[in-house]
Amino acid sequence: MKPTVIQLPDVQANVPTISIHLTRVGVTDVKKMIEIKRNNKRPIILISTFDIFVDLPSDRKGANLSRSFEAMDEVIEMAVKMPTYGIERICSDIARSLLIRHEYASKAEVHLKSEYVVMKKSPITQMNCQEVVDIFAKSSAIRNIDKSVIIKKTIGAKVVGMTACPCAQEIMRDKAMKKLESLNVEDSIITDFLHDVPMATHNQRGIGIVSIEVDDDSIVPVDDIISVIENSMSSCVYELLKRSDEKFVVETAHKNPKFVEDCVRTMAKNIVNKFKDLPDESVISIKQINEESIHRHNAFAERTAILSELKEEIY
Amino acid sequence: MKPTVIQLPDVQANVPTISIHLTRVGVTDVKKMIEIKRNNKRPIILISTFDIFVDLPSDRKGANLSRSFEAMDEVIEMAVKMPTYGIERICSDIARSLLIRHEYASKAEVHLKSEYVVMKKSPITQMNCQEVVDIFAKSSAIRNIDKSVIIKKTIGAKVVGMTACPCAQEIMRDKAMKKLESLNVEDSIITDFLHDVPMATHNQRGIGIVSIEVDDDSIVPVDDIISVIENSMSSCVYELLKRSDEKFVVETAHKNPKFVEDCVRTMAKNIVNKFKDLPDESVISIKQINEESIHRHNAFAERTAILSELKEEIY
Amino acid sequence: MKPTVIQLPDVQANVPTISIHLTRVGVTDVKKMIEIKRNNKRPIILISTFDIFVDLPSDRKGANLSRSFEAMDEVIEMAVKMPTYGIERICSDIARSLLIRHEYASKAEVHLKSEYVVMKKSPITQMNCQEVVDIFAKSSAIRNIDKSVIIKKTIGAKVVGMTACPCAQEIMRDKAMKKLESLNVEDSIITDFLHDVPMATHNQRGIGIVSIEVDDDSIVPVDDIISVIENSMSSCVYELLKRSDEKFVVETAHKNPKFVEDCVRTMAKNIVNKFKDLPDESVISIKQINEESIHRHNAFAERTAILSELKEEIY
Amino acid sequence: MKPTVIQLPDVQANVPTISIHLTRVGVTDVKKMIEIKRNNKRPIILISTFDIFVDLPSDRKGANLSRSFEAMDEVIEMAVKMPTYGIERICSDIARSLLIRHEYASKAEVHLKSEYVVMKKSPITQMNCQEVVDIFAKSSAIRNIDKSVIIKKTIGAKVVGMTACPCAQEIMRDKAMKKLESLNVEDSIITDFLHDVPMATHNQRGIGIVSIEVDDDSIVPVDDIISVIENSMSSCVYELLKRSDEKFVVETAHKNPKFVEDCVRTMAKNIVNKFKDLPDESVISIKQINEESIHRHNAFAERTAILSELKEEIY
Repeated sequence: MKPTVIQLPDVQANVPTISIHLTRVGVTDVKKMIEIKRNNKRPIILISTFDIFVDLPSDRKGANLSRSFEAMDEVIEMAVKMPTYGIERICSDIARSLLIRHEYASKAEVHLKSEYVVMKKSPITQMNCQEVVDIFAKSSAIRNIDKSVIIKKTIGAKVVGMTACPCAQEIMRDKAMKKLESLNVEDSIITDFLHDVPMATHNQRGIGIVSIEVDDDSIVPVDDIISVIENSMSSCVYELLKRSDEKFVVETAHKNPKFVEDCVRTMAKNIVNKFKDLPDESVISIKQINEESIHRHNAFAERTAILSELKEEIY
Repeated sequence: MKPTVIQLPDVQANVPTISIHLTRVGVTDVKKMIEIKRNNKRPIILISTFDIFVDLPSDRKGANLSRSFEAMDEVIEMAVKMPTYGIERICSDIARSLLIRHEYASKAEVHLKSEYVVMKKSPITQMNCQEVVDIFAKSSAIRNIDKSVIIKKTIGAKVVGMTACPCAQEIMRDKAMKKLESLNVEDSIITDFLHDVPMATHNQRGIGIVSIEVDDDSIVPVDDIISVIENSMSSCVYELLKRSDEKFVVETAHKNPKFVEDCVRTMAKNIVNKFKDLPDESVISIKQINEESIHRHNAFAERTAILSELKEEIY
Repeated sequence: MKPTVIQLPDVQANVPTISIHLTRVGVTDVKKMIEIKRNNKRPIILISTFDIFVDLPSDRKGANLSRSFEAMDEVIEMAVKMPTYGIERICSDIARSLLIRHEYASKAEVHLKSEYVVMKKSPITQMNCQEVVDIFAKSSAIRNIDKSVIIKKTIGAKVVGMTACPCAQEIMRDKAMKKLESLNVEDSIITDFLHDVPMATHNQRGIGIVSIEVDDDSIVPVDDIISVIENSMSSCVYELLKRSDEKFVVETAHKNPKFVEDCVRTMAKNIVNKFKDLPDESVISIKQINEESIHRHNAFAERTAILSELKEEIY
Repeated sequence: MKPTVIQLPDVQANVPTISIHLTRVGVTDVKKMIEIKRNNKRPIILISTFDIFVDLPSDRKGANLSRSFEAMDEVIEMAVKMPTYGIERICSDIARSLLIRHEYASKAEVHLKSEYVVMKKSPITQMNCQEVVDIFAKSSAIRNIDKSVIIKKTIGAKVVGMTACPCAQEIMRDKAMKKLESLNVEDSIITDFLHDVPMATHNQRGIGIVSIEVDDDSIVPVDDIISVIENSMSSCVYELLKRSDEKFVVETAHKNPKFVEDCVRTMAKNIVNKFKDLPDESVISIKQINEESIHRHNAFAERTAILSELKEEIY
């Protein structure tokens, strides 16, 4: 005797009344714990949020969404076993599996975002700090007419740092210079002093966001993206700062003032240096959001380009 | 004597160290109260959040962001005086003004989102209800080499409604039918009963999101977009329902079950009907998110197309 | 003939299976547009979010939530007509009305929050700025055994400003002093210079939150609460700053450095001064959150007390 | 030679200008990865967000916040080594350590929240599901005049489930009954049918929140709190449902309709049963939020009581 399960009506397989093609059908906000094996290191454990989609032909009422969960679970189980498996590879493997399980689809798309814990040391006292960074990945798989599949994958990170405004600092430097002149301090002493002691300015949390889209064969370590972002603002931020560390951070930021525009340009340059071996057509997206301490609103800058464009402009 | 203001250093105008072009530079999360005059009606008052951007050439360190505020304020003041001024026109006028004030820019972009209060009546008892709907608009202005400017504008809304699942209902209908058969109720009675009394299913809040991008001359009333979305789910939701209203809503939803995919297809059809006179190349984006009552995650469907494609597929 | 409405079953009035008393039953996240009339001024328009509750005796299965909407609507309609009607009075009038409509309840509670637009001028160039401030109000009504009703009402605001850290500034001042000494600059010149030119420090957005709970007769203008918070940080923030304004804000903040603790203590003092005529037992809650620019986390301080306690500690 | 660190000014230790006591001073939104060892099981890994506070006497300008991080880190390192260490114990141990490190404080408070992954099986097909649940804990430590310390700790969870409305169902049942009567179906058949096939109603995601405050010696397993909440709504939700599972969930929910008030009362009863051995004065807080599918707003109910009160009311 057949089990009851099979006899239930399959409404999804019906022909819809309005026969239009759907660009994306799927589930969003699915939370999954992922454990990623690594060689000679403890596994990385992530609680990730997935959005996964396939397209739907005009002659099918609904997609079988439970199959999408099977695709996710299969790949997540694999990740526990295989070392050197990045989060962007999790996405591309799920995308590939979705096309197999949804035989009526010609496109699959997988998005993942997660918090990722990075260990750091405070700059002077070298105390251990945990920093939580937002990472994300995305992959799309397209089935060609000849049944071959093209994969694109994207990996990125969003990192908090500190930015100090060059404009307000220049104004305060101007004021300091004029004051010292009015007190008849010698020019050479003024120059020496202002070289050594950076003047005040407004500073604030800045958020750098970088994503890189590549083909399925290229490897883009997320830790490299994080370090590019961290090194492109006025200073890193730290969980734990003793007084000497705080001095170092404030001084570093004030000796390295950056507009929101400067942060994006510095990230662009650092990406070109760090990822010069990626294919020329890799798509680079760079954003910076500064939570201006003098305003309630944010300053924003962005550059989107393929890698070869950035290379050309910078060199 | 010149005022101090002028003598302060203009750091933004410097040449940057890393000379790359920036796609977008601006401010985000700027809140503004807007009052929109209307003929023979009370003005609409919106607290809106703006993101506004220009591009920045590679030879300029920073954009003068205070000019962007002047562009916004100028247009917002105009809105108080001119009737029949839609929120998408506010965006396109600001975009145009941005290009004038940032002479170094070749592109400007303005995003706006707001809550918008719609008055409704409960379906049976006809009590007054307020419904708050999210509306949004966007505009881009591009300066051509010959100095002419091309404007695109987008207007959209995000509306909450109710969706009932056709699949689970079919399963429950199956169960009811078999039960009545086992009790020897006649087929014609079963058919009559099941035609009149819709069976149970899981139902939930659904969120429909529609946006339409047109050229600067076309007019797309946001109220029409809202009514398209409201009429594409299993039922509207209401702030205030007396018992007879609640009966009406539950019955309506259960007599009109819809998958997330069905909602998108219904919106597509309703858009083609309501906006048939818009230019063929108007870009239509339709999304539906169902907050499934049987899951912690959401179901999602989407169609993006130009109007002529939708027309062809539907007719 | 009776209308259908009346014949529908009233399940809420049943006796529940588990007969326990409920502390609060109601609706949350109800959005309402409110128009508040003012003498000789344009009305204030607010899109407010309400949470409203009554308690429920152990012998009643459910509360009739539609009655709570009638209470809200009745009071909101009144607000359009009566000048000098504060948002905290809207809450207390709804609370009073809830007790009348829910005859089985002995307690009612109403919460309201809203965005509120405040007009300001930039500090030097005197340009018009809009600032959006979060305001909130709360009221509880308790029915005594003798049927008399006791009302308490709370009003508050949450305002963004700027805070500069005194500790890091002291460290940078120390550095500047030692450097000038090493360059053989005279002590009196150093003192004069450091008095006039404030040294660098980390600074950031700070958020001040004040609420005051009083009896039904006392009046607490929300604009006074806002001005107390604005004047208790290192500087106000502004939507629009020309270069001379930015200089003023940065200098003001750096001449007035404040820890998160200092902000709370300054608010306490300013409240005692501004609201000295309120009853002694008025409950004052003061919070400050600094979005530290050197960390990913926030600094926080809080004082909760009745007014007489604050008065005693301060004087 | 003394290291530089020590010579930096300690501004926090100064006497403040406004000498008032502060109720709470600390850091909020600190993210930490915690690994909790368990006997014979894999460790639990949580990314937790902490808020930690001490009070501050009126004669001290600031608290030394870096000491609070040392307290956190010390306890988190311990958790890796000691099995059967609950999250509420992490909080109480940090609170105790805070009092030792902040010798000037008389009160310490620690809040923690985290996502927690629970493994489940789909109800019929027994497939593996992951469910992510929000858990939280809190602890306060108070130093008495005789130097003894009193600890209170709270543990809680927030779980999503499904609720079906009894009122609308009763209305639909009424309609079904009248329809069958009008078709001359016998009363006994109608009764049998309506007993077996539950009628339609609106249903939606419900969120149950329970927290329990106890003394430091009592143990409250968070898994027990989660199971109490899961079993108090109309049905559980699942990540993954095949068609036969979906039938089961929809039928279960419709055979077990519950108002928001019913959910709270059921949780109260289940808590009294599950936690009957906790001390009588344990503080129980129970909340339910139903995201009504027929409205844009939520329904809410709450009971707060000590355990002995609940016991008395229920039995």
